[in-house]
Amino acid sequence: MSKSQISVLGTGLMGSAIARALASCGHEVVVWNRSPAKAASLASAGCSVETDMVAALRRSPSVFLIVNDYTTATQMLHGARAHLRGKMIVNGITGTAADAREMARLVHEAGGSYLDAGIECFPVDVGTAQALINYSGDDVAWAGAKDWLMQLGGAGTYLGGDPGAANLTEAALTGAFFNVALGAYLEASAFAAAAGLSVKQLLPTTLHMLDLLRRLLCEEAMPAIESGDFGTDQATLDVYLAAVSSWRKEMLTVGQRASLMTANLHNLELAQAGGHGSKSIYAQFLTAGVGTESRNLD
Amino acid sequence: MSKSQISVLGTGLMGSAIARALASCGHEVVVWNRSPAKAASLASAGCSVETDMVAALRRSPSVFLIVNDYTTATQMLHGARAHLRGKMIVNGITGTAADAREMARLVHEAGGSYLDAGIECFPVDVGTAQALINYSGDDVAWAGAKDWLMQLGGAGTYLGGDPGAANLTEAALTGAFFNVALGAYLEASAFAAAAGLSVKQLLPTTLHMLDLLRRLLCEEAMPAIESGDFGTDQATLDVYLAAVSSWRKEMLTVGQRASLMTANLHNLELAQAGGHGSKSIYAQFLTAGVGTESRNLD
Repeated sequence: MSKSQISVLGTGLMGSAIARALASCGHEVVVWNRSPAKAASLASAGCSVETDMVAALRRSPSVFLIVNDYTTATQMLHGARAHLRGKMIVNGITGTAADAREMARLVHEAGGSYLDAGIECFPVDVGTAQALINYSGDDVAWAGAKDWLMQLGGAGTYLGGDPGAANLTEAALTGAFFNVALGAYLEASAFAAAAGLSVKQLLPTTLHMLDLLRRLLCEEAMPAIESGDFGTDQATLDVYLAAVSSWRKEMLTVGQRASLMTANLHNLELAQAGGHGSKSIYAQFLTAGVGTESRNLD
Repeated sequence: MSKSQISVLGTGLMGSAIARALASCGHEVVVWNRSPAKAASLASAGCSVETDMVAALRRSPSVFLIVNDYTTATQMLHGARAHLRGKMIVNGITGTAADAREMARLVHEAGGSYLDAGIECFPVDVGTAQALINYSGDDVAWAGAKDWLMQLGGAGTYLGGDPGAANLTEAALTGAFFNVALGAYLEASAFAAAAGLSVKQLLPTTLHMLDLLRRLLCEEAMPAIESGDFGTDQATLDVYLAAVSSWRKEMLTVGQRASLMTANLHNLELAQAGGHGSKSIYAQFLTAGVGTESRNLD
């Protein structure tokens, strides 16, 4: 595989992991950090340390930008805009779709190409086959950088031309799915503990439910969403709604707040009110995004 | 393995699956159903069909009760209470912990022993190594019936002497965990669809998040709950709360209701307010059960 020249701007925990992984694959890696001490330690990993940001950026055709936040990154790119022509900027900062699109506009106006990176792994996983980093933005940039970007995480995917897609995917799957599922496990465990059940007693059922979740998402929920066919000859949404209502009452009986369970009941009730009660439980997809939450936290 | 004599009272979808699985293991199975036609078809599977409920119950030392609801079952057991001495009743009806405890009391007063069964599998899975049925109630009854009960589902577990434990485990893990996690996936997918992303584009990240969920629950969340140690040298609850708040805003931006995500934010805010912001995200366990949900649906 051909070797590339890449500048990594920002060498916090994640930036350092990225620089090390690229250097260990034989690429010529230039590093810069606002506090130079953090970058200096990367010299022993074979990285070339620059103390001037613009100098670091000018040394490579590809730049991986991974500083703390978008405000800092925008200031940096504004300061270096005269040197962005022909550069490919990969932006690994966590933010919104609008942040990514605005950054892409800035880079395009200065003559560069842009990829947004949604880093869905921990620093310790960078460089492994299992690590997932999603990319979105210019397809030509992806085609050119794919080889070394995939070395950072073997599970990486390209999500298409909208620079916002990587951040949107993170909001949907790390946020709205994974983080809520984790919270649900903790709410369930607090309930079980209040009812006198231990983690150990619950382990076989927990593992069973994790298997079932994976199987039903892949074999039933995804095909239903893709095809738009929410029919079922198994338990209907009405049946699940009755069970959820009963389970929630059990939680209230042992003094639980049941925040997520109540929101779940609310989602099912709105699906039923939308006329989907005799369809499959996956039909809540049709109404899950509709309307406004009654409790506004803003 | 020794053969047992078992009466299965109720031969709907699940009762029929149980009767068939027991008969195919060589046990002497007596079946009864309120509508006799449903039981009659089990004769060809080697079951002995009784049209009188009390007669069916009297023929076996062990009785698997799987009729529609607790009201029906309670009436049946009241009607047969003169014949319950020395019997072991296994109750597979879905209900609350209080339902199970009341049923156990009725059986105990009539001189029988009691096990409650939480059936966490589909009828088609009954009799397989993967099928999970949890049991709780009299430990002597469990010791005596364990062999044939485990033939109904190889993943079966005994949860202890409280007859309510099987139903509580179902409410916690099928209800508060699995069903909410499923709802979270559908809420996330509705959000992603509104943002222009397809199920196919999201598949690698979805599978990654399912793996991550399993790994973090087993390697981090469970040990934290068991040890009571919610310290972390990784991202703190405060950091996750900021991310969740940002992801939720992204959902609102594309017009989503974000019911579960809002409840999740609420749980994290209450954990932070409880003084757990600098601990791990699992510290929400400490406050997830506390207090009353502000929105009361009852």
